[in-house]
This record gives sequence, structure tokens and C-alpha cells, in this order.
Amino acid sequence: MKVAGVPYRSIWREADRVAIIDQTRLPFEFHTLRLSDCDEIAHAIRSMQVRGAPLIGATAAYGIALAMSADASDASLQIAAALLGATRPTAVNLHWAIERMVRRMQAIAPPDRADAAWMEAERISEEDIAFNLAIGRHGLALLRSLADRKGKVNVLTHCNAGWLATVDVGTALAPIYLAHDAGVPVHVWVDETRPRNQGLLTAWELSQHGVPNTLIADNAGGHLMQHGRVDVVIVGADRVTATGDVCNKIGTYLKALAARDCAIPFYAAVPSPTIDWSIHDGLREIPIEERSAAEILTTRVINGGNLISQAQVAPDGTHAANPAFDVTPARLVTAIITDRGIAPASREGLHDLYRRKVA
Amino acid sequence: MKVAGVPYRSIWREADRVAIIDQTRLPFEFHTLRLSDCDEIAHAIRSMQVRGAPLIGATAAYGIALAMSADASDASLQIAAALLGATRPTAVNLHWAIERMVRRMQAIAPPDRADAAWMEAERISEEDIAFNLAIGRHGLALLRSLADRKGKVNVLTHCNAGWLATVDVGTALAPIYLAHDAGVPVHVWVDETRPRNQGLLTAWELSQHGVPNTLIADNAGGHLMQHGRVDVVIVGADRVTATGDVCNKIGTYLKALAARDCAIPFYAAVPSPTIDWSIHDGLREIPIEERSAAEILTTRVINGGNLISQAQVAPDGTHAANPAFDVTPARLVTAIITDRGIAPASREGLHDLYRRKVA
Repeated sequence: MKVAGVPYRSIWREADRVAIIDQTRLPFEFHTLRLSDCDEIAHAIRSMQVRGAPLIGATAAYGIALAMSADASDASLQIAAALLGATRPTAVNLHWAIERMVRRMQAIAPPDRADAAWMEAERISEEDIAFNLAIGRHGLALLRSLADRKGKVNVLTHCNAGWLATVDVGTALAPIYLAHDAGVPVHVWVDETRPRNQGLLTAWELSQHGVPNTLIADNAGGHLMQHGRVDVVIVGADRVTATGDVCNKIGTYLKALAARDCAIPFYAAVPSPTIDWSIHDGLREIPIEERSAAEILTTRVINGGNLISQAQVAPDGTHAANPAFDVTPARLVTAIITDRGIAPASREGLHDLYRRKVA
Repeated sequence: MKVAGVPYRSIWREADRVAIIDQTRLPFEFHTLRLSDCDEIAHAIRSMQVRGAPLIGATAAYGIALAMSADASDASLQIAAALLGATRPTAVNLHWAIERMVRRMQAIAPPDRADAAWMEAERISEEDIAFNLAIGRHGLALLRSLADRKGKVNVLTHCNAGWLATVDVGTALAPIYLAHDAGVPVHVWVDETRPRNQGLLTAWELSQHGVPNTLIADNAGGHLMQHGRVDVVIVGADRVTATGDVCNKIGTYLKALAARDCAIPFYAAVPSPTIDWSIHDGLREIPIEERSAAEILTTRVINGGNLISQAQVAPDGTHAANPAFDVTPARLVTAIITDRGIAPASREGLHDLYRRKVA
């Protein structure tokens, strides 16, 4: 996608380094970083300079490539995999990408591993984009049929599942970008997504692409749905269970409840690697990351022109809790939009889709 | 209630002026203001130096008293009533208090109006406290029975319906204060309540009173309910319809949906003047205040020690919408806790309660 007219991905190789956009500075400052080793990659994931389940997976794959370039031994591979695997607990893509890289490396003699690792990481990136374009095409059909009936589509989304959260194109936002480019009139209600305000990333990337959007407090979506101002909810996911439960940014469950109460369709848009076939009960089995209370007690602000800083919004001594994800039970999910098509959010629906060949 | 050991109300008379706590500076700074005329009262309500439906009503009553002290003519009364009535659109208590004051003034010759107005405003304040203590006693019985079963009660509340939102004691927090004082183990999950962060007021006043509390993002409540960490939801209201619909701070509806989905009781705690007997369909008939987009694009922060400021959290040019209240349909409300007792959230339930004499 484009930033001020220049095409960008969220991650790319530059010679023997990996380039990323520092997302902790967005939307205030557009700033790229070059990462030289696996430690820097792990730090970028942990500190959320890169975030979003698919992008975390791609970034970890590049981390393995950097590790193999420095030292292609089995010990180095194991250390890199463990380091990267410990950065974030909830997104399944992280572990999927690391395991795929480790398996690939184990099939290759150490002298050839570095080149193979870079190639495999590139392949994961290219696949991510292909997945997202496929999600976009399937979702576009949904948005077009809503627009045909209503004249215009109002989509509500939570958090950021756009191109910044993936290598490019996005998951939840892919149908929106494709619809906008195809001339389907689309407007997006963007949840602020406290405590980390990822909604600002969504508003920023949509605006860069020219998609009309409106930022709202996380509290507002239910009210807008009650008054017919939302036609469809589309979110991304950090993990979807084999039974169709959707684990996504904290607060997603509340929007799914409101969508159900107001008879509005609620979709999760995910690439295949986000489906965790080993998990059948999202509420009991998915570990939910508990992040620092400091995120609740602070926010990022503009401080003198474009400079950003972390500022306190609550006094010292305030107790806070900060679960980062929640699980929306499959019963509240209209369907899962995947790269292979749109599946009912159920064991049967997902299995049926994945028995078919890739379209 | 007490602030650092000193008893305070949210509003009180000081000779020919009205004293308030400047709530826009809380919880960072405790700062009181003296208001000398009706214009200053209107400004205090409009700028949310005072906020909370019951406190707005009491403040407007004092505004009429100040207006009558300056000029007790019918014209002055009409101007004051119109000025105060236009400050905030959603809370019914504002109009209730103004109408009561106007009716009282119209029954009295101008020379005697000033004294009578001060007396009536004082009476409204005293009644508010009596209402809230009665709400507290009825709610205490609910909390005690939950604690008897579970050993401890975890209450979730949204926005601020504590003593700061009333003349004293609070509505939603009244049962919590009485329970805490009676030795019932109670802990409160406090929604941050973006965009204006009134949850910080709730956390502050609970902490001043020693009630254990934890601040959470507005997104987190559903997840906590799913995991059995919330036993009951109690909110205040700006208006309750004759049919039991609850109009309260934006986001309340989402918590009511989650409570229903998780089989957790959901109560609104309101004094009698908050019930609007003229309205039967909350979703269609209650005007919802649309506040400035600037509230979404900014937040209050601590800026150098105790100083607070309004800081930007989103770049210029971001579009935002900011509805300030929503309506929770009666079907999602377990019951209404009033000063007269606990009523099912229905026309029959409320009518039955109000046919009875005041307890």
C-alpha cells in the first residue's frame, strides 16, 4: 500500500538487514528502522514496533534468517526460535512461522541455511500478501452485495488489521481496500482500541489510501449499531480455533454481542495460518496476554509539533488490569472470511473449506 | 464523603456563593471553585466542572437561587431557566430541578424569592442525599447476598455514578460504600470510560474511601465477565424511561449485553427524579448529546508533576464522532435500584413501586 504516494510494505529485506516501520511512532511520525540481528527482531516484536498477528509471524521468520546469517548451527537455531517464541503469547502465527522456519532449517545443512532462511522468510511474506488479496476478493463480494442493497456500506472495525498488521494489504481491511478501489462506496467506523490506540493506525492507513473513516471511542459502536449506522462488522484475529472461536484484541467480544443484538453480520477475516487446528475451546485454551498496567495509566500524545511521548492519564498508585485479547464464541460469528473462501464459524464449516483445494 | 479524611460534598453554599469541586482537574488536583452568578453555574455545567445527572440537577437549582438573588423578576427567572436548561441535553434531572425551582418561584412574590430559592436548592440537595442513602440500603442487601454466596463481591461499574456525580454518597456506588462500611468484602472493576475518562473519578473516590478497585479499559469488561471475575454490574443513569430503558454513558449498552450473555445481573441505580415518566421508548425518544470530536482526539494528561493539560492523542485531520450516551433496552436490565426499592425494569415494575408510599 502507499504512504504519501510511495508504495510500502510493513517489512522488507535490505541487503543483510530487515527494514520495518516503527509502528509505535505512527500515526504521528512515519519512521523506518533497520534491524541487524535476531535480538533486535525480538525487541521489535516485544515492544510492538511491529504488531498484528500476520506481521509478527513474518517478522519472526526474518529473525530466524538473521540468526542463521550470523551462526547457522543447530544451537543458534534453537536459541533464536526460543527467543522469538517468547515475545508474545497470543498470536498463533508467531509459532506457526517459527516452526515452519525451524523445520525448513533442519532439512538443510548448516552452510546452506542462511540463504534458504532468507528465501523462506521471503516466501512467508509473499504468501501473506497472496492470502490477504484472496481474503480481500472474498470479502469484496460481501461488501458489494451490501452496497447494492443499501447504496453505501458502513463497516465497523476494531484494532488494526490492515496492511500495517500484515506484510501488505491487510486482513479485515483487505475487503475494504478492494471495495474502495472497485468504486464501492465504503465508510469505516474505527474503534479507538484502548489502551494502545491501534485504531489510530487504522484511521491513518485508511486515510493514506483515501478511504473515508471516522474514529470513535470503543464505547460507541453499540449505539451506532442500534441506530442503523453500521452495516457490517469485520475484524481480524490473532487466533481462530478449529471450532470457529475468534481470539482478537480485547473488546472484540463486546462488538460481536452488539452486532448479534442488532442483527448485523459479524465477520473475522483471517489467513489460513491464523487458524489453530489444535484448539477447540477458545475460552479455555487460548492464553491471553496480560500486558502492563502502565498501558492503562498512560497514553501516547503529541508533544510539541510531531514529537510523541508517553504521558500519564491516571495518577500514580491507581491499580489497573490490562488483558490484551478476548475470545468471541463462534456462536456470535456470522462467518470467517479466509483466503480459501467464507466459512461458517464452526468445526464443520472450517473443515469443509480446508478439505477443498486452494482456489 | 471524605477527601483525605476531610468530609466533603460535591456542592455547597458559602454565604452568597456556591462552592463546587472542579471535576475537570480531578483526579490529578483537588481544587474547589466559588460561583457567583447563574452564568458561572451554566458554564460549570457546560464545561463539566460539575457532571453526573443528580449533581447537574442540584447545581442548576443553585443557579436559579443565584439568579433570584441578583434579580427576582419573572424575566430573570425565565432567562435563568432557559440558560440552565440549554447546558446539557440528556440528563432528565436537570429539567426536573429547573421546573421544580420555577414552579416554586412562581408561587412566591418576587421580594421573597431569593430566600425561598436558596431553601429549595438546599432541599433538593438534602433530598438527593436521602435518595442515595436509600438506594445504598436497597443495593446493600443485594451485595450482601452475593457476598454470602461467593465470599466476596466483584462489581463492575461504568463512568462515575459516585458521590462526585451527586450531592453526596452516589447512586451506583452507594451500595458499594454502604457494603464496604458494613464489612462486606467488595472490589470494583472501574471502566476507564473514554473519551472523558470519568472512570478515573470513580477510582479516585473509591480509593479515598478505601474501597479496593481496579481500573480497566472499556474493552475489558466482557472478557472479565466471561471468566467469572465479575459478580454484578451496577451503573447510574442519566434517564430511565417509564418502561425501564436505561440511558447512561456511552458504552453502558455493551456491558449490559455482556452481562446478559454471561448470566450476570445488571442493575441501574437511580433516584426517583431520574425516572422520566413521559418517555416510553428510550431508543427513539431520548435525545443523545453529540459532544465535540476534540474529546476523541485528545485526553487529559499529567504534565509535569501535578499540572494537567489536554494533549492530542490523534493527529489533526482525523475525523471523529462522539455520541455521549446510549440506551440499554429494559430487556437487558435485571432491575432498577431506586430510593423506593428495587423494581423490575418494566412499566409494571416501576409503576408498582411508585404506587407505594416512600419507605
